[in-house]
This record gives sequence, structure tokens and C-alpha cells, in this order.
Amino acid sequence: MNYPKGIKKNNTSKSINITSFSNRGMSLEAEINLSNEYYLNNNIANIHKKPTPVVIVKVDYKSRKEAVINEAYFKVPSTTDYNGIYKGKYVDFEAKETKNKNYFPLANIHKHQIDHLKNIEYHNGISFLIIRFTLLNRTYLLESSKLSYFINNNDRKSIPLSYFEDNAFLIKDGYQPRIDYLKILDEIYFGGNV
Amino acid sequence: MNYPKGIKKNNTSKSINITSFSNRGMSLEAEINLSNEYYLNNNIANIHKKPTPVVIVKVDYKSRKEAVINEAYFKVPSTTDYNGIYKGKYVDFEAKETKNKNYFPLANIHKHQIDHLKNIEYHNGISFLIIRFTLLNRTYLLESSKLSYFINNNDRKSIPLSYFEDNAFLIKDGYQPRIDYLKILDEIYFGGNV
Repeated sequence: MNYPKGIKKNNTSKSINITSFSNRGMSLEAEINLSNEYYLNNNIANIHKKPTPVVIVKVDYKSRKEAVINEAYFKVPSTTDYNGIYKGKYVDFEAKETKNKNYFPLANIHKHQIDHLKNIEYHNGISFLIIRFTLLNRTYLLESSKLSYFINNNDRKSIPLSYFEDNAFLIKDGYQPRIDYLKILDEIYFGGNV
Repeated sequence: MNYPKGIKKNNTSKSINITSFSNRGMSLEAEINLSNEYYLNNNIANIHKKPTPVVIVKVDYKSRKEAVINEAYFKVPSTTDYNGIYKGKYVDFEAKETKNKNYFPLANIHKHQIDHLKNIEYHNGISFLIIRFTLLNRTYLLESSKLSYFINNNDRKSIPLSYFEDNAFLIKDGYQPRIDYLKILDEIYFGGNV
């Protein structure tokens, strides 16, 4: 179920178009990528999306310069999709969209990824989730400590919207950057200074 | 020229074998991956190799669970291969082997990657190269500041071995971890405490 999503994501990021800045339907991933580009170009932070993990099986060397991969498989990621550095601190997060209006299904995140976020916290990094409720047009930043707290204290397989409302930070839509999640980190970790 | 290497690297990491610990011919990448695994399992650091960047063009969905990538291409990496967190600090590096005995050809590292290492330094992260002279059986850690210094003050397209001898840190071979590069970071950045 995760694999088709992985591919869609990849295609989406390929088709980023400067003229589509005003497109409200842009995927969360595309918006985060643009925001990271903005952060990078303005010397604010250096945060990147990791490549989709694949196992490469067969490669055809048409020429010295062009190699074509003929057979490869998607691999379950052992870490999150995004990491980098902001104000000297290590930053690590996973981003997901959901079409549900009332809850975020935990099945959307691999167990490995949740463990990874916890481990980053242990090493004094900044780790979190960015979750978008597409139909509500709301994007939340949920610290990994709050994610762990929920998992440790609930048997539910999904996090209700109310938990986000009470424990996560709402990221306001912007123009540049589109998803200014570092502003939230300023509030949480850097005493609100920008 | 970089692409065939990328693939070889991938195959190598797939074939890591526990019984081959004593194999002196293990690739630098395999040894770094094992070292990172050791660091992770012993709660010392959380550092990973990024997946090989590919552009996925065609995917065949044989079943819901198994998707086969039928057409994909290697992408020039915009960042380095390894990053993560150590003692709360962001760590970022690229690792390369050379069969030359007297110099390391700068063509082995993409311009983007050199710029990336510099940018990490700007953001107060720890960035460096790990370079192995395979035939000499010597592995060096060269801080990115020393790499920049060389590039800014030389017209040469390769870094001579003597520059490594004078400016880089020799990483001793070990059993576990094989390539204890964090020990060098302790010396440089953390006052020698382990």
C-alpha cells in the first residue's frame, strides 16, 4: 500500500512547476521541497528529502554516460524522508497527508520510522511529524515526544484530530516558504527568535 | 563514470556478510555501513547512508504488495551519501576510495557535494570526507574546511597524498567498529572525551 504512494510522490516532485505556486492542490511533499529550497537559498537551513530507497537489480549500460535501470524494487525505508541542519541542530521528520477528516491512521508510518524519530530524540536532535489533513486544509507539526506519548497511552491505531488540535502546532500557509515549519521550531526550541 | 560505481556500491552493501568481518578487501562503504550499525545499536550515534538517488519512470504493479520498477535512471546526487547525528551535532560526509597511490582525484566528488559540505560548515554542522587509498590501506578523515582550503589555494585537479598526511586524520582499522571515524570527531570537536 505504501509503494504506490511512494511513486506518486516521486512523480509529483518531478513535476514541480514555478507557475503552479498558487495551486492550492500542490502536494505536501512538493510544498515542503519548495520550502526547503527557499531555506537553502536564503542560508536559513540545509534540509533535504532523502531519495526513495530502492534495491537495484538490473542495469543496462546503453552508453558510458547513460545507464538504464531495468529492474528495481521499492525498499521499506529504515529512516524518515527528511533530515538536515537548522541553527546548528540536527532536524529529522516524516511528512504525510491523509484524506480522513477526523483521524490520522498510524499505519501510514512504518514502525521503523517511529523508532527512528524516538532515537533522534534520544540523541538530542529535533524530530517530528508534519501531518496534513488534506480535506480540512490543515497542516500540523507534531513533536515526536507527543507521538510517543500518544502511542504509549492509547491502543488506538489512529490519532484523532483532537489530539493534534491539543498537542500539535498548526503550520500556517504562506507564500515563501509555503510551509514555514522552521518558524514552529523557533517557538519550541529557540525561544521564538527568528 | 560515477554511475557504474554507484551500482557496484549498491551491490556491495547488499552482500554484507557477518562471516566476512575479517575480509580485508571489504569496501569502504560496507565498512562504514557496519560501523554506523554498530554506532546505532550501541546508542552512540544515528548516522545512515542515503539511498542512491534515482528517477523512477515506469513501474509495473504485479500485485498490491510487489511493485517492479522497469525503468529508472541514476541522478546526480545533490548532497552527500551520509548524514546523521552524533552527540547532538549534525554530521555529514562523503566517502570515496581511490586506487591511486599518490593523489586523490577531485573529479571523484561532484561540485554539488563540495558545495554541500561547505554549506553544512556554514550552518555549524560537522562535515568532512573519508578517503581511502586502497592500495596503501590507509583511510583518512579530511575536514571540509581543509578541503575548501586546498581547492581555494590550488589549481590542481587532485589532492596529493602529502596533503592528507599533513592535514587529515588517519583512521585506524578496528574490529568493532571497523572504521571508528567518530573517535576522530571526538578529538577535533569534543575535546577528546569519548
